[in-house]
Amino acid sequence: MSNNRTVLMVKRLRALQASTQDVESSAVVSVDGLIIASSLPSGVEEDRVSAMSAAMLSLGERISGELGRGTLSEVYIHGSDGYVLLVSVGQDAVLTVLARQQAKLGLIFLEMRRAAEDLLELVG
Amino acid sequence: MSNNRTVLMVKRLRALQASTQDVESSAVVSVDGLIIASSLPSGVEEDRVSAMSAAMLSLGERISGELGRGTLSEVYIHGSDGYVLLVSVGQDAVLTVLARQQAKLGLIFLEMRRAAEDLLELVG
Repeated sequence: MSNNRTVLMVKRLRALQASTQDVESSAVVSVDGLIIASSLPSGVEEDRVSAMSAAMLSLGERISGELGRGTLSEVYIHGSDGYVLLVSVGQDAVLTVLARQQAKLGLIFLEMRRAAEDLLELVG
Repeated sequence: MSNNRTVLMVKRLRALQASTQDVESSAVVSVDGLIIASSLPSGVEEDRVSAMSAAMLSLGERISGELGRGTLSEVYIHGSDGYVLLVSVGQDAVLTVLARQQAKLGLIFLEMRRAAEDLLELVG
């Protein structure tokens, strides 16, 4: 992937984070668990985010298929201190977001789907 | 667990399914992947639902912890043909719901949280 594309993806991730106060970090991860682009604050490890995203995507796809829910499009994990949100970016990548506890999920998913469309053009 | 408790749990699951048209099936599963009570239509296998719920719960807890989101409370998986939704029932069990594609998620999660509170008293 060209360096220019990576720069454009990071720019798009920053725009996503600027669209709502409740997105702490975001990253585009390949289905095999490699970081494609990221906008993570210091203290959040890229490797950890990418490994967890790939594991979640893989299990989510299996569960969606096994329980007759079709092709995976989104996953969310809600913990006592916030959310982990994943939205597919085409077939080969996923957009992962860490959001705060008070996040407005409907708004964040809307912004994530928009970002995923833009990112798909850059990944593809 | 007494037979009477199981009957009450199944009754509570049926009430959950009656509360909205969009819940197809529901089950209470132990964290080790065994069915505690279920209300599944024919064609949905108990073993499959329980195994997938336990796997999801286990990975969800790990991800929530590793990415600083605290204790797991809810998971959703959105596929092209519907949703799989999980809500914790105390520390030892989870309420799993399969919902249709057109489901109103906010309503279903509200009903699931109410059901989880009632079920916790029966599991406990």
